[in-house]
Amino acid sequence: MSEQRVITDAVELLNKIEDLHPSDIAYSLKKIHSDNSATFFDTIKKIPEEFLGEVILELPEYLREDVYEELSIKQLTEAVDELDSDDATDIIQEIEGIDQNKAKEVFKGLEEEDQEEINWLKRYNQDEAGSYMQTELFSANIKESIQDSINRLKEGKEKDELENIHQVFIINDDKKLLASILLEDLIIFDFSKTYEEILNSHEENKFRPFVVQDKDDIDDVAKQFEKYDLSVVAVVGYQGMLMGRITSDDILDVIEENATEQMYQLAGVDDDFEHDDNLFTIAKKRGFWLFLNLGTAILASLVIGLFDETIQSYVALAILMPIVASMGGNAGTQTLAVMVRQMALGDIDFDNSKSAIKKEVVISLLNGLVFALVIGLIAWVWFDKALLGLVIAMSMIINLFSAGFFGASIPLLLKKFNIDPAIGSTVLLTTVTDIVGFFSFLMLAKVILL
Amino acid sequence: MSEQRVITDAVELLNKIEDLHPSDIAYSLKKIHSDNSATFFDTIKKIPEEFLGEVILELPEYLREDVYEELSIKQLTEAVDELDSDDATDIIQEIEGIDQNKAKEVFKGLEEEDQEEINWLKRYNQDEAGSYMQTELFSANIKESIQDSINRLKEGKEKDELENIHQVFIINDDKKLLASILLEDLIIFDFSKTYEEILNSHEENKFRPFVVQDKDDIDDVAKQFEKYDLSVVAVVGYQGMLMGRITSDDILDVIEENATEQMYQLAGVDDDFEHDDNLFTIAKKRGFWLFLNLGTAILASLVIGLFDETIQSYVALAILMPIVASMGGNAGTQTLAVMVRQMALGDIDFDNSKSAIKKEVVISLLNGLVFALVIGLIAWVWFDKALLGLVIAMSMIINLFSAGFFGASIPLLLKKFNIDPAIGSTVLLTTVTDIVGFFSFLMLAKVILL
Repeated sequence: MSEQRVITDAVELLNKIEDLHPSDIAYSLKKIHSDNSATFFDTIKKIPEEFLGEVILELPEYLREDVYEELSIKQLTEAVDELDSDDATDIIQEIEGIDQNKAKEVFKGLEEEDQEEINWLKRYNQDEAGSYMQTELFSANIKESIQDSINRLKEGKEKDELENIHQVFIINDDKKLLASILLEDLIIFDFSKTYEEILNSHEENKFRPFVVQDKDDIDDVAKQFEKYDLSVVAVVGYQGMLMGRITSDDILDVIEENATEQMYQLAGVDDDFEHDDNLFTIAKKRGFWLFLNLGTAILASLVIGLFDETIQSYVALAILMPIVASMGGNAGTQTLAVMVRQMALGDIDFDNSKSAIKKEVVISLLNGLVFALVIGLIAWVWFDKALLGLVIAMSMIINLFSAGFFGASIPLLLKKFNIDPAIGSTVLLTTVTDIVGFFSFLMLAKVILL
Repeated sequence: MSEQRVITDAVELLNKIEDLHPSDIAYSLKKIHSDNSATFFDTIKKIPEEFLGEVILELPEYLREDVYEELSIKQLTEAVDELDSDDATDIIQEIEGIDQNKAKEVFKGLEEEDQEEINWLKRYNQDEAGSYMQTELFSANIKESIQDSINRLKEGKEKDELENIHQVFIINDDKKLLASILLEDLIIFDFSKTYEEILNSHEENKFRPFVVQDKDDIDDVAKQFEKYDLSVVAVVGYQGMLMGRITSDDILDVIEENATEQMYQLAGVDDDFEHDDNLFTIAKKRGFWLFLNLGTAILASLVIGLFDETIQSYVALAILMPIVASMGGNAGTQTLAVMVRQMALGDIDFDNSKSAIKKEVVISLLNGLVFALVIGLIAWVWFDKALLGLVIAMSMIINLFSAGFFGASIPLLLKKFNIDPAIGSTVLLTTVTDIVGFFSFLMLAKVILL
């Protein structure tokens, strides 16, 4: 189980397909594609419809799009028909992105009930819990007997409509969610009892369901999964009506995406555009960030410009100048990464912000002292001038101090103004460390050396 | 449910404690601590033992350590006694980290069976699947009837020994794992049947368990959870013996930690040492990275030193010099973040590495052309010298090209040598962009301007 099961022979893959997980099939197909895309396309056309949808979902985006173009409307319809509502909606929307009419045709081919569910799910924004929920779930009316509901579960499973079931959601006649009973509890109850009897014979909190609103931000939902160690939450809408459920496997993806987004933001990359086919679009997005950085760099140059005579009369300054700025930038980046991440994970908030800033300043200052000594000696020996060593040492301390202080304060400050700390922190920080770095070094040089 | 439930009044908190989730209790205690640590400590001492352990686990590390010191051996023993084997082991090991003898005393107070389990789990390294598994699970001998096993489940749940049960693991007399039946399947079977009858009446694959080895790397286990959308895996040891299980909530934490680690590595921070109480230790770890960066910076200075006369005779070069290097550094960081993350998520591997490099080079080059134009004009106007504009424009193109190329190649190269691409990529890249940036700019200036 541990190692990836790859089958690069198309015929063998199709023969073994029933024993393979869609994810493994997709991985093998990816390999086949990188060898020969023609083989890839007629292999995927031969995949039985009951697996096809799941396999498509596991393919990387660039292959999915080709597949939507290659597969017939009939094949796509059959594939989508086999999927849970949330996955079906995703595929329909992806096809829309490529070929409006084809998407319409596929949609028309689905059963009316599925069409309604898809239309419903399409109304949610990407970041709303509703767009992550699946409407297929196991629910029972409070008046119903356990045995009757289990018979329905049996039918649902035989028709492959229900899978990955962890609990039964108890609702009233208005579909309002009242309770959630885990299968591990349900299985030990007397099946002849009604749910009402069960609920009345236990204390109220025992079966209190974990609930999110369909309009809740999916990131908050993910936080709840982590906080409460959940494997499923119920999604309710207007007046607590049960609409669907979100399972932990969807949340794993959300957490991965958020981490990616954050890492990208710190580096000045916008995840939403990175997957665009048009490289100009990606370049434009990244260019915006580089443009801000150009501004920073020019500011730094203006600072240097203030000291052109100083540099002219003492060119060693030009040679050493970048060291202080770069050390400040790196120390600041360390602090920034820690702050942004800890804030995102909730370990640093406004309650303990003071101690966090203090901690970062101390760490940064400790290194400032060490590297002041090191670079001071190097500069002294290199240019055989003790005072030059003193100058660079002093400015190193000043800049690493400000790197720690601003690296810790900037993200907190941005959050105070409800700006995502990961966005913009870096460019603001480098502005500070560049300017402080060059100015302190050259100013000290002007005063002490000349 | 959506918003955090905070109770900052100690008395009220203790009254409501039965209705609160340990995570909410811990969050409230954290708030109480930030107001008044004395209140915090005597509140936590008053928490009933059946909740105490869970609450401690939800506290931030810096509070947990204080709690271990404050609470009596008796209280700690009772708290640990209530926990699952994996959590119990974690707490025992944390106490050991603070007070060996206290840990011994607490350990002695536990039932022999728990002691054995803890001793067993302690043998696993932090990164092995075994250290994440809990030994409490619902298993049944293949000869057993479903009804008998469900009766045992009932007892186990009444004794609070079993919770969060998703399936029954079927074993033979040697404890070898044979199958895993989800409760959603089990509940619809005829309970009078034995598991053997059930297994024989279904095709072999239906109940094939998802299995990992106890020594497997937990990161690989996490990858499997994502690949196969799992909520539980069985952990087996020697000869496929069932040892325990890992649930999705543990994997959520693993994924968060990995993302944090990666983000930190890119910024030159070592997560393992960030939580150390001793700021000198943290500073030392971060200092190592800064030391490498100092080397880079000095290399850059040496490059600049080659052109000291050029700079002396034309000081504008010193003023503009940092712009090219900084733009290259930022463009390279963008590429690096994308590559490292996509490689970690498995979207970029050696199969499609060529196209990935090409993509990054094109994007970087596109921006190179744009910013060459921009900075070229600025430099021309600023210093009223067209050739200076030409020089900086050309070197901008050269440096952003190499930023894209090396930003994409370095992580792939590191991976070829089995080095984690996130580690060291940044320092290697900045070395390149600094040197290429300064050298191309000053060399071109020397040739064209003088």
